[in-house]
Amino acid sequence: MNRLFANLPTTVFEVMSSLARETGAINLGQGFPDDPGPEDVRRVAADAVLNGYNQYPSMMGLPELRSAIAAHYRHWQGLDLDANTEVMVTSGATEALAGAILGIVEPGDEVVLFEPMYDAYLPLVRLAGGVPKFVTLQPPHFRLTEEALAKAFSPKTKAVVFNNPLNPTATVFSNEDLALLADFCRRFDAIAISDEVWEHVVFDGIKHQPVLGLEGMRDRSVKIGSAGKIFSLTGWKVGFVAAAPHIMKVLAKSHQFLTFTTPPNLQTAVAYGLAKDDSYFDGMRQNFARSRDRFTDGLRTLGFDVIPSQGTYFLNIDITPLGETDDVAFCRRLVTEHSVAAIPVSAFYAEGAVKNVVRFCFAKKDATLDAGLERLADVV
Amino acid sequence: MNRLFANLPTTVFEVMSSLARETGAINLGQGFPDDPGPEDVRRVAADAVLNGYNQYPSMMGLPELRSAIAAHYRHWQGLDLDANTEVMVTSGATEALAGAILGIVEPGDEVVLFEPMYDAYLPLVRLAGGVPKFVTLQPPHFRLTEEALAKAFSPKTKAVVFNNPLNPTATVFSNEDLALLADFCRRFDAIAISDEVWEHVVFDGIKHQPVLGLEGMRDRSVKIGSAGKIFSLTGWKVGFVAAAPHIMKVLAKSHQFLTFTTPPNLQTAVAYGLAKDDSYFDGMRQNFARSRDRFTDGLRTLGFDVIPSQGTYFLNIDITPLGETDDVAFCRRLVTEHSVAAIPVSAFYAEGAVKNVVRFCFAKKDATLDAGLERLADVV
Ligand SMILES: CSCCC(=O)C(=O)O
Ligand SMILES: CSCCC(=O)C(=O)O
Repeated sequence: MNRLFANLPTTVFEVMSSLARETGAINLGQGFPDDPGPEDVRRVAADAVLNGYNQYPSMMGLPELRSAIAAHYRHWQGLDLDANTEVMVTSGATEALAGAILGIVEPGDEVVLFEPMYDAYLPLVRLAGGVPKFVTLQPPHFRLTEEALAKAFSPKTKAVVFNNPLNPTATVFSNEDLALLADFCRRFDAIAISDEVWEHVVFDGIKHQPVLGLEGMRDRSVKIGSAGKIFSLTGWKVGFVAAAPHIMKVLAKSHQFLTFTTPPNLQTAVAYGLAKDDSYFDGMRQNFARSRDRFTDGLRTLGFDVIPSQGTYFLNIDITPLGETDDVAFCRRLVTEHSVAAIPVSAFYAEGAVKNVVRFCFAKKDATLDAGLERLADVV
Repeated sequence: MNRLFANLPTTVFEVMSSLARETGAINLGQGFPDDPGPEDVRRVAADAVLNGYNQYPSMMGLPELRSAIAAHYRHWQGLDLDANTEVMVTSGATEALAGAILGIVEPGDEVVLFEPMYDAYLPLVRLAGGVPKFVTLQPPHFRLTEEALAKAFSPKTKAVVFNNPLNPTATVFSNEDLALLADFCRRFDAIAISDEVWEHVVFDGIKHQPVLGLEGMRDRSVKIGSAGKIFSLTGWKVGFVAAAPHIMKVLAKSHQFLTFTTPPNLQTAVAYGLAKDDSYFDGMRQNFARSRDRFTDGLRTLGFDVIPSQGTYFLNIDITPLGETDDVAFCRRLVTEHSVAAIPVSAFYAEGAVKNVVRFCFAKKDATLDAGLERLADVV
């Protein structure tokens, strides 16, 4: 067996969700909402399953969805994407990420990764034969610095995998951070693989800036998006990729051999959903922001040290004031003794793990959050 | 960009389907039926989309689907699979194949491939860093021979990628062939990655034998199946993998980073479908056999030299009697001048391509087949 995979642990998201399923714990670990998602979008999908086309769609995705993606990003982020040559539909953002890393990185290429990072990035870089170069972002602001980037980039840098808004820290990078990243990508002729699955879930009037829209990045960026995250339908596994034609040509080839196509019925519904007007997306954000505030307030009232969340479905707590020094042990106790599943943030580090931060998903109904708070009451 | 992908052509199935879409040709190329698929199965999926769970399911697949897969293969093929540790759901058989090859093969490992072969096998083996060792199967019977296998297997053989029923030849391997394959796998301690997506589509009373059920193969086989092919819903992209626990543990890790999960609503419907009784599957086969016969007879009446089809959605013709020596040029003319898309079988070869065979998909309504025949009338 391939030792790279044989030696990997099961992803912490699945481990905690399985534990929650087995023990009946409230699952505030893995990032998914517990409401059923927009009914009209589900209705369009149900209709397509029953009365629509259920055979292989075009490999690049349904033309109507590719057009809807281009139109959505044109309107919302001012991006000028050609639906035919610069947009592709994938079976979730995970496939998009795998396809981008495997499609771009060759054995020996260096790839800059920012810690904390989503746990799929590093194994995929290793699978491609890439050499990871880590930049560890420092709390509380997780800023990019000239000094740290200068250490990580080299003439051998082929790509950087970037995540904004950043999971798990729930921070949004500033325009200065982004300009610095773009500057290094240009100087070192590197491609930015930009995981922007949380782009729509940003609060307090902050606006997400796509890397592909930064100066000089139009031809050296892969933008990854997720309908599951945009529409709170994480199980649908409809993702998308945007990139200049010379990059997309290669990504199409890795897609061809990873999944080839994505269910057309779900694609039809996502195309419908992306055409919704701004008020829909604003309302979605307001709902999540309300949940964030409710859960933040509740945790603070209980005495937890909550780190502010600017976006994503997540917020973090610092467990140091609780006298805790091991996030994994703490999370294990939370799920077994208090019946609440959370994510130890050390799982997002390859080296020099932070051990004092724990992530909760607040994208839940009020009743779920309140029940979670009740169970957490005697932890402090 | 990764040159392996950059230098690959677009898969012939997509090329021909795009041409068919653009020109309005009758698409007898890519393998998919043109009937809408079983209504009750689609109804269960539509209901699950509207009223069921739309968030991440368990990474290994919905427990109800894994149980249904194990029960189906127990009843139908006498396989004894543990639903918890030996069955996994994937986003189509393509992902299953990618995950198996990437999960098993390490750089430098030799992998035995049989030509003609599905066009995803070789790029995936190369991506894994594997060294392909080809066995070219000889028409008209495409038998395995001791001599050919002895040349291909070596102490460095890690795996063999096997396809039965064989696409594109539409042949089913005999028990002697399978015993020979198993013998070599055992002797050289190799894992058989067995692409059995056409297992249900076998005609004339022939019964497909799973490699995993062969003597000594229980612990060295990866069985790949496809709900899309079983239920004529190729766009659903629900596949499955069966393997002994020590192999499955590693396949779960590659799955984790390729797609992670598969839409739960479609999984629910496939679980429902797999519980259908034998008469359903018999009826499905009879329908396809009828279409095969109709198309075979029609082609023969027109004067084409049809090679008999024992299974799959496909049959082949030998174009030599037409004075043709280039299957690609012939197919291009078919689609542009006669408005019928077909697949040149040379696309299934890496070396020493056969250039005189063309594949048609007969899994179509009578009216589609008849219209196709009408357009092919003046080719001979
Ligand atoms: C693909 S499972 C993980 C979902 C997610 O983004 C998270 O919980 O961080
Ligand atoms: C994944 S597209 C190809 C479908 C198929 O099996 C074929 O046409 O051979």
